[in-house]
Amino acid sequence: MTRERTPHLVIVGGGFAGLWATRALASERIRITLVDRRNHHLFQPLLYQVATAGLSAPDIAAPLRHILGHQRNVEVRLGEVTRIDKQARSVQLVDGTSLEYDTLLLASGATHAYFGHDEWAKDAPGLKTLDDAIALRRKLLLAFERAEAEPDPEKKAAWLSFAVVGGGPTGVELAGTLAEIARHTLRNEFRHIDPASARVRLVEAGPRVLSTFPDVLSLKARRQLEKLGVEVLTGTPVTSIDSLGFQLGEQFVPARTVVWAAGVAASPLGATLDVALDRAGRVLVQPDLTLPGHPELFVAGDLAALTQADGRPVPGVAPAAKQMGKHVADTLRARLHGKPVPGPFKYADYGNLATIGRMAAIVHLGKLQLSGVLAWWFWLAAHVFFLIGFRNRMVVLLNWAVAYWSYQRSARIIFGDVKPPKDPTRG
Amino acid sequence: MTRERTPHLVIVGGGFAGLWATRALASERIRITLVDRRNHHLFQPLLYQVATAGLSAPDIAAPLRHILGHQRNVEVRLGEVTRIDKQARSVQLVDGTSLEYDTLLLASGATHAYFGHDEWAKDAPGLKTLDDAIALRRKLLLAFERAEAEPDPEKKAAWLSFAVVGGGPTGVELAGTLAEIARHTLRNEFRHIDPASARVRLVEAGPRVLSTFPDVLSLKARRQLEKLGVEVLTGTPVTSIDSLGFQLGEQFVPARTVVWAAGVAASPLGATLDVALDRAGRVLVQPDLTLPGHPELFVAGDLAALTQADGRPVPGVAPAAKQMGKHVADTLRARLHGKPVPGPFKYADYGNLATIGRMAAIVHLGKLQLSGVLAWWFWLAAHVFFLIGFRNRMVVLLNWAVAYWSYQRSARIIFGDVKPPKDPTRG
Repeated sequence: MTRERTPHLVIVGGGFAGLWATRALASERIRITLVDRRNHHLFQPLLYQVATAGLSAPDIAAPLRHILGHQRNVEVRLGEVTRIDKQARSVQLVDGTSLEYDTLLLASGATHAYFGHDEWAKDAPGLKTLDDAIALRRKLLLAFERAEAEPDPEKKAAWLSFAVVGGGPTGVELAGTLAEIARHTLRNEFRHIDPASARVRLVEAGPRVLSTFPDVLSLKARRQLEKLGVEVLTGTPVTSIDSLGFQLGEQFVPARTVVWAAGVAASPLGATLDVALDRAGRVLVQPDLTLPGHPELFVAGDLAALTQADGRPVPGVAPAAKQMGKHVADTLRARLHGKPVPGPFKYADYGNLATIGRMAAIVHLGKLQLSGVLAWWFWLAAHVFFLIGFRNRMVVLLNWAVAYWSYQRSARIIFGDVKPPKDPTRG
Repeated sequence: MTRERTPHLVIVGGGFAGLWATRALASERIRITLVDRRNHHLFQPLLYQVATAGLSAPDIAAPLRHILGHQRNVEVRLGEVTRIDKQARSVQLVDGTSLEYDTLLLASGATHAYFGHDEWAKDAPGLKTLDDAIALRRKLLLAFERAEAEPDPEKKAAWLSFAVVGGGPTGVELAGTLAEIARHTLRNEFRHIDPASARVRLVEAGPRVLSTFPDVLSLKARRQLEKLGVEVLTGTPVTSIDSLGFQLGEQFVPARTVVWAAGVAASPLGATLDVALDRAGRVLVQPDLTLPGHPELFVAGDLAALTQADGRPVPGVAPAAKQMGKHVADTLRARLHGKPVPGPFKYADYGNLATIGRMAAIVHLGKLQLSGVLAWWFWLAAHVFFLIGFRNRMVVLLNWAVAYWSYQRSARIIFGDVKPPKDPTRG
C-alpha cells in the first residue's frame, strides 16, 4: 500500500475509443470514470440493420455497466458533458456537477451534418444513434402503409419513392437493404401496391460510391447495387431537400422518404477545448493523440483528426477508434510505470469491408480484393465476431440465419399509435 | 364463378380474438378487412418481459401484414377506429374515411384503468402496449441510475423503492422479475449503491395474490415471491399515488417507481355501440357473441362480457379470446354455407398458469396443481409454444437460455438521451 493518491482518468464517451481504452487499463492502479449520455455501447457498423428492421436494438448494444461491471477501477457515470475546462482540468456536466481529472480522454465521437443545411434534417434524417434507427425504421415502414392507403396514383408513386443521399458505406448498406425489403420482404403483404415497384435511389455527389475502395471494387459495388434494384446516381450533388423530394441538378426528384448518409461532423465538445479544429470540427491532435501543451488531455476516435507521418489521414472507422483508445492506454500505462511511452500513433489498416445487401459485399485486404457472395460471407463473419458480448453474437447469427432463409425481417415493429403520415401536398 | 357479391367482414383489432377469427376464415369466400391502429399482433402474456428488459419488442410481436400476407381474402388496414354506426353498418376511422360492412367483429380489447383516479397515470404507468413496456423499462433502469448519482441517503433509498399495485398475473410477474433484476442482474454494476438493497413491494387490495387460483396455490405464489425478495402487502387498498410514493391505509410508503397492474377497462369503442355495458365498460353480448337485434355484429375478446349457462363469466385471458374468435368464425362459416350455427359460446378452460420469477410459477390444470421449478418449466414450454411465428420461438428460447445461465437481461437499453429524472422533492 502506498500513500500516493490514485490518479483519476476521466473518459468521455463509451464508443470504440473510450471503451477500448478503459478495458486496456483494467489492471492498472488508476481510477477511471467513464461518462456517457447513453447507458449503452453501440456497435455502430450494424446500426443500418436496426433501421431496416433486420435486428432489434438490443442485438447491437450492450449496457456499459454490464460490460464494465467487473472492472473494479471503473465507475460508469450516466450524464451529458457540456464543456471541458482544460486549464482547471475539469469536465462540466449538464446537471451542474463537474468531474476533476488528472488525465482526460475525450472520445465523444461524431454526429451527422448537413453542410450548413440544417433545414434538411427534418425531411432527411440521418443515422447515428439507436433512436435515429428506430425513427428511420418507423418512417420507412409507414411510407409503404401510406402508399397502400393512397388512392391518387401519382402520390402513391411518391410514397414508394425512396432516396439515400451519400454513397459511403452507410448509404450503400441502407439503399441495398431497402431494395431487398421492397422486392422480397414485403412481397404478398399489400393489396393496393406492389412493394417491388418502389424506386430506391442512391445519390452520391462524387464520381463513384464507396470511394475509399479501389476503382474496380467501387464499380463492382455499383453493379451489385443495380442488380438488387437500386438506381445509382453519381456525379451530381443534391442542392435542396424538402418533404416532397429533392433537387438534383436541373431535375426535381419526387421522394417522400429521403435518408441522409452524406455528412459527418465531430461532436460539439471539441469546440469547447479552444484549440484548432479541422473543417469537420475534429480536433487536430499531436502524433501521441494529446493536445499541444496538454500531455494530460487526449482526444481519440472520430473526434480526433490526425495525419500520419506518411501523409495519410487516420480514417474515421471503428478499427481506428479502437486502436487509438488502446494507444492512449499504452501511453498512460507507460507513464504510470515510468517507462518509455510508445511512439506516434500509427493506424494498422487490416482491410476495408462494405456490405451491399443480400449476398453482396466488397472486401479489400491489401492485395486481396473480393466481391459478391464470398465477400459477403467474409463481411458477415467479421461483423459477428466483432460484436461485443457473447450473447449478442449467437442471437444475431440466428436472427440472420432465419432472416436469410425466409427473407423476413423480424424487427418490423412500428412503435406508438400509428397515424399514417399526412401527405405533404395536403398539409 | 357466381355473380353474388362477396360479403364483407370487417374485424376491428388484431389481437387474439380478431386474429384467430381471421385465420379461421382463410378458405371461405368472404372479403375480410382487418383494422388495427398498430402494425403488429402482440403476444401480451410476455409483455412484462419487455418491460423488464428480458426480451426485446420484436421477440413478442409480429407484423399483421406478415402473419396474413398469404391469406388472400384479407386486407390489413392500419388505422384507428373512432366509432361504430350499427344502423348504417359502417366503421368510422380517424382519418375521416369509413368502412361499410356486412358483418362486423369488434375485438378492440382492453386498456388499463385507474378506477376514476386518472391523475395516478403519470406516476403509476400501466402495461398494455409495447410502448408502455419500453417506457416502463426506461423508468425502471433510470431509477437505479438516479439512486447511484444521489448523494442524500434518504432520497437514494426512495429511488431504490419500487412498488407494483395489483396482485394479478401481471403484477406478480413484474414484482418477481424486478426483485430478480435488483438482486442478480445488476450485481457488481454500481459503485455507490447496492442494487440488492432495493425494496420491491407488491400491493394487493384483496386478501391474496393471484386470486383466480385455488387458495393453496395462491399461498405458494406468495411464498415464492417472498423468497425472491418481494414484500407482499395484501388486504389494504392504495388510496393515493404521487411522484413521492403512495398511501396505504394510514401509512405513506416512499417509492419513486410505482407500476400500475390493478385495473382493466374495455376499449372505449364499446361505448359507441349504444348498448348495455358492464362496470368495466365491456359489451354485454348474447351467448352467440352478437348484439341483441344485430346478428351481423359480433363482439369478442376482452371487450366482450358474457356469463355462461353455468353462471361462470368468461375470463379476460388469451385462450378465451382465441376461442371467441374461432367461435365467431364458426358461426359465420355455418351461415355462409347455410348450415346450422354452433350453440352458445362455451369457454374451454385448459388451465391457468402464472409465472413469478426465476424458476418460480404456479400451474392449475383441473386436478393438477404445481408450483416451483416444475411449474416454471411448464409455464416456459407453454409460452414458447404459443408464441406466434417460428422465428420468435427460437430466438426467445435462446434469449431465455442465455439469460437464465448468465442472469443477464439482454434488452437493458435506454432509448433516447438520458437525463436522469429530477428528484421530485426538488422540482
